[in-house]
Amino acid sequence: MLIPGFRAAATAAGIKKHGGLDLALIVADRPATAAGVFTRNRVKAAPVLLCRRRLKHGLAQAILVNSGNANACTGTAGLKAARETTQAVARELRVAPNLVLPASTGVIGQPLPVEKITLGVPLLVAHLRPDGFEEAARAIMTTDTRPKSAHTSLKLAGHRVILGGIAKGAGMIHPDMATLLAFLFTDAAVSAPVLHRLLRQAVDQTLNCISIDGDTSTNDTALFLASGRAGSPTLTDPGEPGAAALAAALTEVLAELARQIVADGEGVRHRFRILVTGAATPAQAKRAAATIATSPLVKTAMAGPDVNWGRLMAALGRSGARFNPDRVDITFGEIPVVRQGVGLGEKAEEKARSAILAGPVTITLNLNAGEARAHCDTCDLTEDYVRINASYRS
Amino acid sequence: MLIPGFRAAATAAGIKKHGGLDLALIVADRPATAAGVFTRNRVKAAPVLLCRRRLKHGLAQAILVNSGNANACTGTAGLKAARETTQAVARELRVAPNLVLPASTGVIGQPLPVEKITLGVPLLVAHLRPDGFEEAARAIMTTDTRPKSAHTSLKLAGHRVILGGIAKGAGMIHPDMATLLAFLFTDAAVSAPVLHRLLRQAVDQTLNCISIDGDTSTNDTALFLASGRAGSPTLTDPGEPGAAALAAALTEVLAELARQIVADGEGVRHRFRILVTGAATPAQAKRAAATIATSPLVKTAMAGPDVNWGRLMAALGRSGARFNPDRVDITFGEIPVVRQGVGLGEKAEEKARSAILAGPVTITLNLNAGEARAHCDTCDLTEDYVRINASYRS
Repeated sequence: MLIPGFRAAATAAGIKKHGGLDLALIVADRPATAAGVFTRNRVKAAPVLLCRRRLKHGLAQAILVNSGNANACTGTAGLKAARETTQAVARELRVAPNLVLPASTGVIGQPLPVEKITLGVPLLVAHLRPDGFEEAARAIMTTDTRPKSAHTSLKLAGHRVILGGIAKGAGMIHPDMATLLAFLFTDAAVSAPVLHRLLRQAVDQTLNCISIDGDTSTNDTALFLASGRAGSPTLTDPGEPGAAALAAALTEVLAELARQIVADGEGVRHRFRILVTGAATPAQAKRAAATIATSPLVKTAMAGPDVNWGRLMAALGRSGARFNPDRVDITFGEIPVVRQGVGLGEKAEEKARSAILAGPVTITLNLNAGEARAHCDTCDLTEDYVRINASYRS
Repeated sequence: MLIPGFRAAATAAGIKKHGGLDLALIVADRPATAAGVFTRNRVKAAPVLLCRRRLKHGLAQAILVNSGNANACTGTAGLKAARETTQAVARELRVAPNLVLPASTGVIGQPLPVEKITLGVPLLVAHLRPDGFEEAARAIMTTDTRPKSAHTSLKLAGHRVILGGIAKGAGMIHPDMATLLAFLFTDAAVSAPVLHRLLRQAVDQTLNCISIDGDTSTNDTALFLASGRAGSPTLTDPGEPGAAALAAALTEVLAELARQIVADGEGVRHRFRILVTGAATPAQAKRAAATIATSPLVKTAMAGPDVNWGRLMAALGRSGARFNPDRVDITFGEIPVVRQGVGLGEKAEEKARSAILAGPVTITLNLNAGEARAHCDTCDLTEDYVRINASYRS
């Protein structure tokens, strides 16, 4: 992945307990327009607080990300640490400190090892290169088993434009108006307000529609930087055709990153989509999909896999959505399993089981109570998820 | 446990896939005043629907309970099955059918084996005996490893009165204004409206304050029957001293049943209480306690056990409660672990870990944002929970 105007590098700064790449730097050649969306968790990590403040100007030139430590629940010391580490980057790059955005992921509640990070900064700056994104994607991993990246290209007023990004996932994944960590870059020229609008809309349709465990992180951060290096005219109106084209490209890249995140969820054996249709309102559809997708009993049944659709009904029933249980239809992929609230028998369930085993299945619950729909992409709950999370800090 | 005026019996009717006691009958010698509270899940099992209807009269003489099949999501056939099986009891006892209350627990979405149950009824009636409650408690078990029962006695206007009950739990336990299955009996004389008032209040303080997995059942049912055999004057005013004494006894018995249910939760290694204090409102306190107690990451950390208090903060932060993260104090039992939002270090965490291992620990989160408090009794999330629920129907 190459995105004109951006370079990246990563290093092993000794932040992670068991070693490995844990510090990444992504730098724009010149100040880029920038936007971000963040966790709505009331407990916000220090880098989230600092990022939000610095993005008010709509410009950024560097992102400093570490894994192994979330710098969350660390009080004023945490804010000071985020300032000091980004200050080190600013010094080395000779840019204003408020052009450097911090992001962290890892264990909550432990002091950020400031010195390890500042010692790593000159090395990072020295190693910045256009093809450094792959390494950066590796450095932001925590329990992820694979780095996540995606890119696409499009034409804007005759200019070929690139849009790409990296992300990390694995656990504490239930984005609420933002996400985990995701960093998006384009060489198109886009004003900061348009950038923000596009990012928020695309995140709502992609990263905000996935869940691994229902737990919303303190560090959810998605950043979108535009270098303008492609030479295309600056997009300043979210309604213009170029903005729509860029929005589609952004949604495509974020959807692919979201897919990679769920596929690499902690302990995942089977991925699936919960699609609620025929709901009375969009809010009810969304709440029903999220409730079912986070039900431990639905998720353990999918680990079997066991087509225990009664658990889908039970979770739907406590979701707050209004519907008549005797009108609900459920299909696994193309296989009808429940019609008018009643099961269609073992043969149907056996076929549905094969559909789960064959690949990510879409489980559709039609409430037959209206026109609204919503989905949530999620995964099963396995013994491995428990094992990973019972000993995460050791 | 003996409760004058009531007899019970149980049998193996062949409803459970792998055999064992699965059908119980509890009978009052004469029609007893009766009250019930039920699941607020929109998907309600057939026995719940029929029970609610029959309790409108405030009288009952028998409870027919089966395990192995929830008779939920079974449409009109399910209601017919509940009617037919209770009709068989009514015939055998020569009482009106609407004096017989049905209850079911087990797999959702499979037809109730009506014939197996009706064939078992004459046998049950023949074996009714005053000390049959222990066997009945065994017959309503699903993934429970132990039967649950509790009783107490009190004096009402000079008369010794007994109050006791049985319950089942294990999974799909997150009562919402009702509970799992619980059956309470007393030989006091109580009007049906007072019975209902006492039951609802006591359930709110006990069974509604526990969670095993956050999934609310389609079959939650708590019934309370009073035979009046003790000879005490009939309680008709919830404000009178006798009613208060009975309320205290009922809360005591239900709290003990709730304790037994959480202790025998599916795969439980460590039980704990989440106590939220200093919240702005009672509703926020309750929501915060429930959110933390159902967080997969909190529950897997407790399985370790790992004093990963950052996950408590993260779950608190997404609960919707209003608070300042920098003012939160957290203690494990008597051990302070977080003060003013910041961790107190490894030594404190090591002590807190011992507190978890030593027995059910109370984890107190003081939000320092008001005066309200609420608790939720819960348990960890272990590999065994996943194993049990990935193959529940096989």
